[in-house]
Amino acid sequence: MIEGTICTPETVDKIGCYGNALVCVNQQGLIASVLFPNNSQYGEIKQTAISQGNYHQLAADEYLLPGYVDLHVHAPQWPQAGLALDLPLADWLDHYTFPLESKCSDLNYSKTIYDSLVKELLSQGTTTALMFGTIYNDSNIILAKACLEYGLRGFIGQVAMDNADQTPAYYRNQSAKDAIDATELFIKQLQKLSNDADRVVPVITPRFVPSCSDACLQGLGQLANKYNVPVQTHVSESSWEHGYVLDRFKATDTSVLDQFGLLTDRTILMHATHLTDDDMDLLAKREAALAHCPISNAYFGNGVMRVKEILAKQIKLGLGTDISGGYSSSIYHNIRQAVISSRMLEDGVDTTKQATTRGVANSRINIATAFYMATVGGAEALHLNTGRIKEGYKADFQVVKSHPSVITLSDEQMIERILYQTQQSDIKQVYIDGNLVYCKD
Amino acid sequence: MIEGTICTPETVDKIGCYGNALVCVNQQGLIASVLFPNNSQYGEIKQTAISQGNYHQLAADEYLLPGYVDLHVHAPQWPQAGLALDLPLADWLDHYTFPLESKCSDLNYSKTIYDSLVKELLSQGTTTALMFGTIYNDSNIILAKACLEYGLRGFIGQVAMDNADQTPAYYRNQSAKDAIDATELFIKQLQKLSNDADRVVPVITPRFVPSCSDACLQGLGQLANKYNVPVQTHVSESSWEHGYVLDRFKATDTSVLDQFGLLTDRTILMHATHLTDDDMDLLAKREAALAHCPISNAYFGNGVMRVKEILAKQIKLGLGTDISGGYSSSIYHNIRQAVISSRMLEDGVDTTKQATTRGVANSRINIATAFYMATVGGAEALHLNTGRIKEGYKADFQVVKSHPSVITLSDEQMIERILYQTQQSDIKQVYIDGNLVYCKD
Ligand SMILES: [Zn+2]
Ligand SMILES: [Zn+2]
Repeated sequence: MIEGTICTPETVDKIGCYGNALVCVNQQGLIASVLFPNNSQYGEIKQTAISQGNYHQLAADEYLLPGYVDLHVHAPQWPQAGLALDLPLADWLDHYTFPLESKCSDLNYSKTIYDSLVKELLSQGTTTALMFGTIYNDSNIILAKACLEYGLRGFIGQVAMDNADQTPAYYRNQSAKDAIDATELFIKQLQKLSNDADRVVPVITPRFVPSCSDACLQGLGQLANKYNVPVQTHVSESSWEHGYVLDRFKATDTSVLDQFGLLTDRTILMHATHLTDDDMDLLAKREAALAHCPISNAYFGNGVMRVKEILAKQIKLGLGTDISGGYSSSIYHNIRQAVISSRMLEDGVDTTKQATTRGVANSRINIATAFYMATVGGAEALHLNTGRIKEGYKADFQVVKSHPSVITLSDEQMIERILYQTQQSDIKQVYIDGNLVYCKD
Repeated sequence: MIEGTICTPETVDKIGCYGNALVCVNQQGLIASVLFPNNSQYGEIKQTAISQGNYHQLAADEYLLPGYVDLHVHAPQWPQAGLALDLPLADWLDHYTFPLESKCSDLNYSKTIYDSLVKELLSQGTTTALMFGTIYNDSNIILAKACLEYGLRGFIGQVAMDNADQTPAYYRNQSAKDAIDATELFIKQLQKLSNDADRVVPVITPRFVPSCSDACLQGLGQLANKYNVPVQTHVSESSWEHGYVLDRFKATDTSVLDQFGLLTDRTILMHATHLTDDDMDLLAKREAALAHCPISNAYFGNGVMRVKEILAKQIKLGLGTDISGGYSSSIYHNIRQAVISSRMLEDGVDTTKQATTRGVANSRINIATAFYMATVGGAEALHLNTGRIKEGYKADFQVVKSHPSVITLSDEQMIERILYQTQQSDIKQVYIDGNLVYCKD
């Protein structure tokens, strides 16, 4: 049981902040109840927890927030975070990223970097991560085991990429069959490893349409139907990528994925900076989800995701760091950039153009909306009952120390400041399914 | 003397990174020499320093960088950092900011917030700050004393704002004469307080053209001529502000300031997101400087500063946090946003427009350029020999602990990662004029 001030998303643009909450967690790692002093049982329940040694009172300057869902991590790119941001997408993949990912054929190396990554994500307040692995099955299992060892809830993809035109010989599946078989094997392995719980979950992961042959996409679509597991891939990420798919299929990424059976209500599509209106309508119809990666998009996206329109169409939408297209492992940094990028979309960038034509009116989101995406949005994308501090939800929390304020702040101001100013070192504890998985120092 | 790896700006887009440097500081707080092991005196000089107890060896994961110059801080707005970011500029001033600044008529309150701010800036690696105070003379002196007490090099402005149309009755100078007299008094007080050194420097500070009457601007221009002190103000900050000045004067901010004698080689102008080509040419001719505040501009600027063009015209250009128009006290955060904003200017934001028309080609800067602005650019704006780790420059340093890397990095990669990932808690020590002014824990 934890007692303290809780901050939890309430609606898409409102955060609730409540003092003296008693957050009770049951044996299944779910929030059994959230009680306040006006509840007649408050005192008794608190005393029982204290006497059972099951009581943690937050300090006056600490706040309990839901853990974050990071909807986009390239686990094998972790060594490259904060580096190699000078090339456009296709060149970046060839020059830096495929060589780096291919190092994961070394399993000792894999263990080193995956242990480091998983601990890093936890220390950033991330409690669930949707990740791309590599084409190497054994290496991906090491990533899954790191999640289990350190407690991170991991959704992990065996990457499929077999198109010889768009992948290097040293780092590709040898055939469509090879990619499909490896994916199916990984699904079975992970379902066994996780013992049918949702701590590590296999994800069907065509890298993106350019990397895959038609046969590969077809086969992966059949697996999505057979196993009903999540699907992840990049869509309409950059001008080049969007244009490549238009050239090859005379159709957008989103509709191509749909044709191959890869657009399900368990699909999460990354970036989506170049979606058409029809794409959005199709996504809404299929109940597929999107991952917004605002830092990465500034480097590779060639434009800003139309977040406000996507939310208005009630498409599920979460946030992702996109390590290492994004330089930061922090969802806080992406919350801030999501707000900033939305304002830059609204106002436009080029002041030599007229104010009325340089931006897109009504595009801005506030930080409460970005917080909602980082919690509820990501949880909905993955069909998880997490992201809120509320009865029945998973006990996935972060304890955050606020910065001292020289004036008295309201609860609304306090949470705004926490979202704008929290840094990694302010995150004191992280809980997943009610278990303490990270404690600073 | 400090021994370790130094990272210092070399050109506008190149950072030098050198191991085993012996950085020797003289009695005047200047860098006397930077020696490397291939120097024949290296060993002897190091031994002498050790025997005199004047030797500090950095750990293997620590790096010595120049301290940052923050070219734009509103000191009385510090309590509001990370808050109140939901209104456009004019409304934001009226609703949040003028009421907050007016609280500085209380000198006890002033001391509380200014002590807090100065310590905060030092802990972010900032060694020089160009600040706006308030209209209150006594309160501004308290800010100057806080700088002297904690060691921050402070350039401080007595704010002038007398235009009854654009300022509230409770927070304005009662007349142009009042504003001019207060400014002149403050110049004399600060020159006395600082004993003619450059630790606290008075700055002529019309808030911005809209806040000031013609007579006020005229009188301040005469003071700039009489005292040859720095001048700071906001220019062409937002669509509204830029348009207001065009309406009132049929001229841009930059040319209006020039007409009033306020555009000198000691002038620093903030934001400048809406400069015309003629403005840039005039700035270059007058050798005035600009302060880029990329985080604040996303909220209030209605567009992106044309950094690459400004640098190409060899206009002095530094970085500012713009507390509290910017939510962060960190120049690191503004370095990152400067890169991101420049890429968004290049690529454009609205993907429903053609790639060839939505952005401004050749606008991107890399992180080395942003680092140059945060160090050399700011120093040049203020006519200070700081911002480089080089013989003859001020011994203004920050010691930064790098994050552990799972792979071996080159020096170039290491400095890139430091600039992208350093957080406040990684800044271990800060030196100004060779004196230790901040030590973490
Ligand atoms: Zn990706
Ligand atoms: Zn300002």
